[in-house]
Amino acid sequence: MSGDMDKPLISHHLPDSNSGLTEAPPEAPRVGILGSGDFARSLATRLVASGFSVVVGSRNPKRTAGLFPSTVHVTFQAEAVSSAEIIFVAVFREYYSSLCVLSDQLAGKILVDVSNPTEQEHRQHQQSNAEYLASLFPTCTVVKAFNVISAWTLQAGPRDGNRQVPICSNQLEAKRTVSELVLAMGFSPVDMGSLVSAREVEAMPLRLLPGWKVPTLLALGLFICFYIYNFVRDVLQPYVQEGKSKFYKLPVSVVNTTLPCVAYVLLSLVYLPGVLAAALQLWRGTKYLRFPDWLDHWLQHRKQIGLLSFFCAALHALYSFCLPLRRAYRYDLVNLAVEQVLADNSYLWKEEEVWRLEIYLSLGILALGMLSLLAVTSLPSIANSLSWREFSFVQSTLGFVALVLSTLHTLTYGWARAFQESSYKFYLPPTFTLTLLLPCAIILARGLLLLPCCSRRLARIRRGWEKAGAAQFPLPEDHSFAQKTSHV
Amino acid sequence: MSGDMDKPLISHHLPDSNSGLTEAPPEAPRVGILGSGDFARSLATRLVASGFSVVVGSRNPKRTAGLFPSTVHVTFQAEAVSSAEIIFVAVFREYYSSLCVLSDQLAGKILVDVSNPTEQEHRQHQQSNAEYLASLFPTCTVVKAFNVISAWTLQAGPRDGNRQVPICSNQLEAKRTVSELVLAMGFSPVDMGSLVSAREVEAMPLRLLPGWKVPTLLALGLFICFYIYNFVRDVLQPYVQEGKSKFYKLPVSVVNTTLPCVAYVLLSLVYLPGVLAAALQLWRGTKYLRFPDWLDHWLQHRKQIGLLSFFCAALHALYSFCLPLRRAYRYDLVNLAVEQVLADNSYLWKEEEVWRLEIYLSLGILALGMLSLLAVTSLPSIANSLSWREFSFVQSTLGFVALVLSTLHTLTYGWARAFQESSYKFYLPPTFTLTLLLPCAIILARGLLLLPCCSRRLARIRRGWEKAGAAQFPLPEDHSFAQKTSHV
Amino acid sequence: MSGDMDKPLISHHLPDSNSGLTEAPPEAPRVGILGSGDFARSLATRLVASGFSVVVGSRNPKRTAGLFPSTVHVTFQAEAVSSAEIIFVAVFREYYSSLCVLSDQLAGKILVDVSNPTEQEHRQHQQSNAEYLASLFPTCTVVKAFNVISAWTLQAGPRDGNRQVPICSNQLEAKRTVSELVLAMGFSPVDMGSLVSAREVEAMPLRLLPGWKVPTLLALGLFICFYIYNFVRDVLQPYVQEGKSKFYKLPVSVVNTTLPCVAYVLLSLVYLPGVLAAALQLWRGTKYLRFPDWLDHWLQHRKQIGLLSFFCAALHALYSFCLPLRRAYRYDLVNLAVEQVLADNSYLWKEEEVWRLEIYLSLGILALGMLSLLAVTSLPSIANSLSWREFSFVQSTLGFVALVLSTLHTLTYGWARAFQESSYKFYLPPTFTLTLLLPCAIILARGLLLLPCCSRRLARIRRGWEKAGAAQFPLPEDHSFAQKTSHV
Repeated sequence: MSGDMDKPLISHHLPDSNSGLTEAPPEAPRVGILGSGDFARSLATRLVASGFSVVVGSRNPKRTAGLFPSTVHVTFQAEAVSSAEIIFVAVFREYYSSLCVLSDQLAGKILVDVSNPTEQEHRQHQQSNAEYLASLFPTCTVVKAFNVISAWTLQAGPRDGNRQVPICSNQLEAKRTVSELVLAMGFSPVDMGSLVSAREVEAMPLRLLPGWKVPTLLALGLFICFYIYNFVRDVLQPYVQEGKSKFYKLPVSVVNTTLPCVAYVLLSLVYLPGVLAAALQLWRGTKYLRFPDWLDHWLQHRKQIGLLSFFCAALHALYSFCLPLRRAYRYDLVNLAVEQVLADNSYLWKEEEVWRLEIYLSLGILALGMLSLLAVTSLPSIANSLSWREFSFVQSTLGFVALVLSTLHTLTYGWARAFQESSYKFYLPPTFTLTLLLPCAIILARGLLLLPCCSRRLARIRRGWEKAGAAQFPLPEDHSFAQKTSHV
Repeated sequence: MSGDMDKPLISHHLPDSNSGLTEAPPEAPRVGILGSGDFARSLATRLVASGFSVVVGSRNPKRTAGLFPSTVHVTFQAEAVSSAEIIFVAVFREYYSSLCVLSDQLAGKILVDVSNPTEQEHRQHQQSNAEYLASLFPTCTVVKAFNVISAWTLQAGPRDGNRQVPICSNQLEAKRTVSELVLAMGFSPVDMGSLVSAREVEAMPLRLLPGWKVPTLLALGLFICFYIYNFVRDVLQPYVQEGKSKFYKLPVSVVNTTLPCVAYVLLSLVYLPGVLAAALQLWRGTKYLRFPDWLDHWLQHRKQIGLLSFFCAALHALYSFCLPLRRAYRYDLVNLAVEQVLADNSYLWKEEEVWRLEIYLSLGILALGMLSLLAVTSLPSIANSLSWREFSFVQSTLGFVALVLSTLHTLTYGWARAFQESSYKFYLPPTFTLTLLLPCAIILARGLLLLPCCSRRLARIRRGWEKAGAAQFPLPEDHSFAQKTSHV
Repeated sequence: MSGDMDKPLISHHLPDSNSGLTEAPPEAPRVGILGSGDFARSLATRLVASGFSVVVGSRNPKRTAGLFPSTVHVTFQAEAVSSAEIIFVAVFREYYSSLCVLSDQLAGKILVDVSNPTEQEHRQHQQSNAEYLASLFPTCTVVKAFNVISAWTLQAGPRDGNRQVPICSNQLEAKRTVSELVLAMGFSPVDMGSLVSAREVEAMPLRLLPGWKVPTLLALGLFICFYIYNFVRDVLQPYVQEGKSKFYKLPVSVVNTTLPCVAYVLLSLVYLPGVLAAALQLWRGTKYLRFPDWLDHWLQHRKQIGLLSFFCAALHALYSFCLPLRRAYRYDLVNLAVEQVLADNSYLWKEEEVWRLEIYLSLGILALGMLSLLAVTSLPSIANSLSWREFSFVQSTLGFVALVLSTLHTLTYGWARAFQESSYKFYLPPTFTLTLLLPCAIILARGLLLLPCCSRRLARIRRGWEKAGAAQFPLPEDHSFAQKTSHV
């Protein structure tokens, strides 16, 4: 088969045979498939559409044939594997041993293991499926590939985006041959090294949003803490000390006091690691030293933390807009009006209160507007179309503006209250006072870093200057030098 | 290094000649263009930028030359077609016959038909433009290509995404040559078979969101039905039976009662086909039988139905937030206050009502938040960056959570009312009672499928197990085996 | 042409050596790097991952080695440059001259300049970094490349999207060699011509959203004008003529009156240039004449103007939803109730007012819903998946529907007031009356263009017909023929 493939790449992009329209010409490279499940069938369709001649090996060819496109040749397993040099093994691991009867016909051929273990199987077997297959067929070359591609994507074809296919094998030539096949089918091959990587490759489709785990737990943790804190202050305190039942506040009011706190703290956690990294570089006087691991990970999860912050802020907006829809709001208003009539106070107006809420609301909307710009620029298709300078302008400059706007929003709300004794229920300070500490510290630190003495030194360090004796810091042993200083 | 790399696909990616900066070297492959419209000019620009030498044939070369880049050679038609082996025919169908004078010079050459008929022309002519061209020039090889690419995309270049160019021709070699050209210009060629497919290829740019047609009609139909139902209950009944004119409710209130019903029913229609497919597989005891066509289509349109559901839910949120802005709301409140004063009832508070609305609103916001996560993950650039497991976690698990939240939202609103006789106006049950039926059935069915007896059997079936005698079901004759069981 | 294409491209896509897993085989192409900053290290990682053997030249190899992956050979500069034919120069411009000691070893080799000047340096030096490097090493071939790629993108690899790398050099062969390297690393090379383009290439990463500058300034300018206008009418007039202090309206009310005006005028500015272009073509009687530059630029910035319009409209919605949250709203309501009680007017209801606001709100939400569909289809990943007809249906047809809905929204709000004398404060007409002028004119003009006499003539012109004597208009001299008539 490799003889065939030396010839132009394009011939595979452009199959001479098309699904049903023309017959595959005799010179089309031939590929075998063992199996007749969804994956095998989608694979066959894609291979035919990419100009290959496909032969499927089945234990019951007569019945199976109806499931495949008409241009696919369905026959007995032994015949199928004899006629092709590349054989896709599209059966479950438990049936691998049943293929041993084909050992003689398979000798010297390339077996492509496309299988995906379930999470349970992956835990259970120390040996990857591909290595197990290789141990069963020592005379064959086993290549792990295509397992990250779903039957659906195979059948629909890689319409948008360039789907990557990790490949590994112990033999370079076989890996290259399969890679050409991957390319010809419209996917991007990614070399993952030798077959020992198969376990890692098989774990890939089992991953569940790994980058989101820590940020989501962080957001949940913050939510629970702040919810309890607000519950104690807003519901428990009135109940215990004044005997008023305000439990109806649990579903909306307390949530709506908690969400902005979470959003605000998360937003400040997006900008904190950058400040820490800059401070560390200033102190060390060099950029040629790795950041501690925790800082490195933190720097890499800023996007997720920022998006969760936006999500909480958006929910906060929705909850706020719902406030006047509540029955409680309506009753409060009516009761206020009745009270006003009874007090014979004909005109109600507190200029300071009015101003405070107008400014408060306006700042909140502007902060949310800024955050949504940040969220939109985080979309892969938009982030990719931006230059580095544009991306960092939006994420760093506009993001910092959002942080400042949020701080002003919070300050307007609570400035007066922070100094009223009545606000300290159970001696607990108001929530917004607590949340203000971290962001204000960050804004202050960013301000300090902008001072000429700091900013010039930092700029010099980032251009490669080192203070005398910076090398005294020990260089770490490992080589994962992901010191994304330019991203701070 | 250069030894390996010397050979070039790249030479075409990397034109030796650049737009105006350097002259095309003599060895650059030469391509001809007939026509001088927008498309011809954009084509010329792209070809020059991709390293080709371009010659344009015009009836009035002197005047036309000014419209093309300076590196393009504009000359008389006869001269242009003589000097190139590949000729793009970028004129309208009605002028094809005027090219017959060039028959001799064109003999044996490749003609690339790039034309797009209008919808009217497409209906009118049974013969595709490309086949018509082929009939006029029997000595030439006609290739249909590039018609799906707009002049704009050609000129801007395929900056983002990999735009596909369907190609068809009766001659393999010509098809391959044009495919190489397509690749060199930065697009992805897709083989569509022989020239009889030209009609289909020409119909492609005439398509108008085919995947959205049925779901949109469905949503519209549901909207109209529910709108009429709500109109009868909320406006007509008070008018007929009580003589109250509530017609002012038509633009906002009735719409806002209708939208959530549509959103809710659509959301349940996203999860219904999956349940049906699972039930069908359980009953048949095999996955090797095709689903009926209607179920297959339904499974494939779930994304669109889900997005329409989100759109309706978002509109419902906007309408709800607008409720307190209405003049009617203001008058109602004032009248309630006045009434309260006159009744001398000093404090208005109904604990149950308060609780009901707080929980109702909170659940609604959470359901909307879930749905927006689903909508965001449906964006192509995000969907592509997710693994299959991640995608199905978001779409299936989170989506089902959204369905449950919506159900709770609806139940909180109307549980009490469902059992009040006064809610049955004209003997019609309240709308939300109607809409609850389907989703509750689906949630129940999903619950049943999770029972060990069902889920184990289903898992075995999806791994290829078949119950004895499953083969008794007749296999369908056609081979469009799009049995996306793994997506259920 | 096919002769050139026969040889495999793929061997470079699929490196034989992988990051740390296997040793680079001896035949792997060898590349040198001078420098040990972030960029140098990311470059080394990517090159190793793409199958190259990398040698880094450092003044202090012992210390530097720890910063690079273990498969990279770090040695003294002189040794490094001797052993490779392609040398990446990853040092700052100010250190270029320090490399002159290596002149002898570098003779005849390819130097790849990857540097990015800061904005200040770019202004300061007339000569680009690459040209300066070329002047220092006359015996070498300098190629400018990779400067648009950040260290981060290099290290992460071009996961999503196809990142373009502009390349320029005076020597074709060197440019081709580097282009192959770019391709092998997973990026798309773009030929920018000879080294004189280096200055332009170096300016690319300094660009800051150039397409957004004019639209943003336009939106800001409109905002300021309308804000002042509304301030005079809504705040200053009551203060001067009636002595009422309404300054509290500044943060929310005045902003919320201003935003829809800006959104509405911007939306009409999206559709105005299309109407102008059509009128111009009708008048000229040909499409073969360039539009004036201002119109061309305007046509190209419609997307940005439209998105800013959507942003303002969305902010307007948020501000509107906040209105009932204001303290002023609450006081107004209570005061109205008290007044109502004192006036002994038991039931408050003005049918016309109620209807007006219901319709007004409903139209506003529908217009916003339409605009969000437009905004979503503007996302690159969605726009790319639409055919030209689909894109223009959404952007042109649905967009126009949004304009009509906004016009009706505005009209409902203010029709009655436009004819009340009391609305003309300081003799200034109400804002919405002003903003209505332009959109209504555009809707009228679009209507006229749909009349058979105009639309038929226009269709003929766009298919290439010209009126007699159209050629009398002088053809412009330059050749930037971006006459996107098909996009009108």
